Amino acid sequence: MKKLINAVEDVVKEQLEGMALAHPELKVNYEPYYMCRADAPVKGKVAVISGGGSGHEPMHGGFVGKGMLDGACPGEVFTSPTPDQMYECAKAVDSGAGVLFIVKNYTGDVMNFEAAAELVAGEGVKVQNILIDDDVAVKDSLYTAGRRGVGTTVLAEKVVGAAAEEGYDLEQCADLCRKVNQYGRSFGVALTSCTVPAAGKPTFELGEDEVEMGIGIHGEPGTHRMPIKSVDEMTQYAAEQIIDDPAYSRTVREWDGEQWADKELTDEPFAKGDKVIAFVNSMGGTPVSELYAVYRKLDEVCRAKGLTIVRNLVGPYITSLEMQGFSITLLKADDEILKLWDAPASTPGFVR
Amino acid sequence: MKKLINAVEDVVKEQLEGMALAHPELKVNYEPYYMCRADAPVKGKVAVISGGGSGHEPMHGGFVGKGMLDGACPGEVFTSPTPDQMYECAKAVDSGAGVLFIVKNYTGDVMNFEAAAELVAGEGVKVQNILIDDDVAVKDSLYTAGRRGVGTTVLAEKVVGAAAEEGYDLEQCADLCRKVNQYGRSFGVALTSCTVPAAGKPTFELGEDEVEMGIGIHGEPGTHRMPIKSVDEMTQYAAEQIIDDPAYSRTVREWDGEQWADKELTDEPFAKGDKVIAFVNSMGGTPVSELYAVYRKLDEVCRAKGLTIVRNLVGPYITSLEMQGFSITLLKADDEILKLWDAPASTPGFVR
Repeated sequence: MKKLINAVEDVVKEQLEGMALAHPELKVNYEPYYMCRADAPVKGKVAVISGGGSGHEPMHGGFVGKGMLDGACPGEVFTSPTPDQMYECAKAVDSGAGVLFIVKNYTGDVMNFEAAAELVAGEGVKVQNILIDDDVAVKDSLYTAGRRGVGTTVLAEKVVGAAAEEGYDLEQCADLCRKVNQYGRSFGVALTSCTVPAAGKPTFELGEDEVEMGIGIHGEPGTHRMPIKSVDEMTQYAAEQIIDDPAYSRTVREWDGEQWADKELTDEPFAKGDKVIAFVNSMGGTPVSELYAVYRKLDEVCRAKGLTIVRNLVGPYITSLEMQGFSITLLKADDEILKLWDAPASTPGFVR
Repeated sequence: MKKLINAVEDVVKEQLEGMALAHPELKVNYEPYYMCRADAPVKGKVAVISGGGSGHEPMHGGFVGKGMLDGACPGEVFTSPTPDQMYECAKAVDSGAGVLFIVKNYTGDVMNFEAAAELVAGEGVKVQNILIDDDVAVKDSLYTAGRRGVGTTVLAEKVVGAAAEEGYDLEQCADLCRKVNQYGRSFGVALTSCTVPAAGKPTFELGEDEVEMGIGIHGEPGTHRMPIKSVDEMTQYAAEQIIDDPAYSRTVREWDGEQWADKELTDEPFAKGDKVIAFVNSMGGTPVSELYAVYRKLDEVCRAKGLTIVRNLVGPYITSLEMQGFSITLLKADDEILKLWDAPASTPGFVR
């Protein structure tokens, strides 16, 4: 295992210490782990919090700052954070306007954010809990019931973060976050595996010329393996999985202020004439130059399908350690989303 | 070779096509290759141009935009661009205020930018040609006479780009760029090799637990190989190579408006009390999370040596394709440099 680390058990702590030193505009708490805007709580503003296993940087900690997240809760690498982290973080950033948890649909994250929501609600903090489940590759997986939460999370953190900054109240932030999730779809491709420091060996093995299609962000299995093809072929496949995905229905649980309530949600498929934000993401080990070859083909496929890319994001934003590969996220963009997408943001990992 | 590419001979062209589609604020020219601000020439403004082999993205093309470069000339992967690229680019962006070429000290780049300077000067364009030679690892190398030009190039493009935006004339831009180069020093470490598409196999081989210290940005040899050590040990070594580097003298050639003139330059070593900008760079395949472990130790070493980090940049900015590894650049920062560092910039690869 070749990594820039000291002792395996100190990896997350020391990376957080580096973040704290490099970014004094963040406050990093170590017991338990969370980071938040140093100027939090921001008076009158809904606090937006996310979190999840480490190893996906810059998401989430790198998106803490004006215009995006108020706080982030990092777990150990590829391991959910615990409810006490979310609880302490929420208490640190709540201004009285309430807290929105943006939760990627992984079983551990969902369970722990739900426990945290109950804890903070018990202390009178207004809280909402919105799931991101945008990965069209698999319905259920090793780590999930339903679709996994992947690239749309980054876009939701930008859009909802901007809305909170502009004065949306908690219910409006939750409604917007739900809409962004329903408008976003993703698909990922792995060229290589990655190595969790505590494991010391690759999470899975891929042959010399093999790729895994439909990969999640933890090296969990995708839909199939195949010999590597041209970037055009792989991009076309991924883009069509997203664009041709039919309506998707499921039941989600949301906190209604007093208890959990089931909600039926159906995401409508993309339609000709849709404007979209196109996000081409590196899984961590793929250089940005190669992402532009993906973008080139993605633009062509979108045009052929009647979609117009009106904004884009190209780079490593939701990663799987040093994994080589890419993911594509398309987000249907209405005027509200576009306006918020274009709003200023100032974080370690995203600046506008 | 696992890469997101189509035919090997189309790699650079198709990546440029992707850039052009994603960033309409840039104009990409294909015969010969260059990219420039779509709004160039900017009236009354000195035009800042850089270039070099592809494979180091986002540098240089990703730094074209307001507050940084007016134009960039990409060669094939790890191959110098040709004088006709620089000539056409310069003609496209010169507003009459002149053109500054920022040139990394690699033999091919130096030779071709010198030829281009003569060509544009022959047409009455004011031009200056400033070398970046900041790599303390090796004096001469496979590709260079004297020190290689590496990480300081990124910082120079930011600082000098801001100066040009603020109205510095050509001589002032050249003086500033020369100063930034003299104030900056870098050292790189490779954990893995990288594969040039046209070669199809890794540029060099490193053992399972081996790292190469003092690497350049093309996989050219460093100072020595050793078994991988802790990030603290590798960072301390790299930082001390930079901070303890003594005065460095050499002769550079600069265009004086009519002919080439030799200039003696001596870079003074860092001194206790210096303020510095610290740049921790990924070689492309190392995720940003690991860079923060480097930053953590770098901060400690700087403090111990009496240097104060007043600004930082952490991420993949000058890369070697998918190579894993890092480089450190320290730039002594006076008030002028700090003010320009903090100035706005709007490019695909760097936003402030």
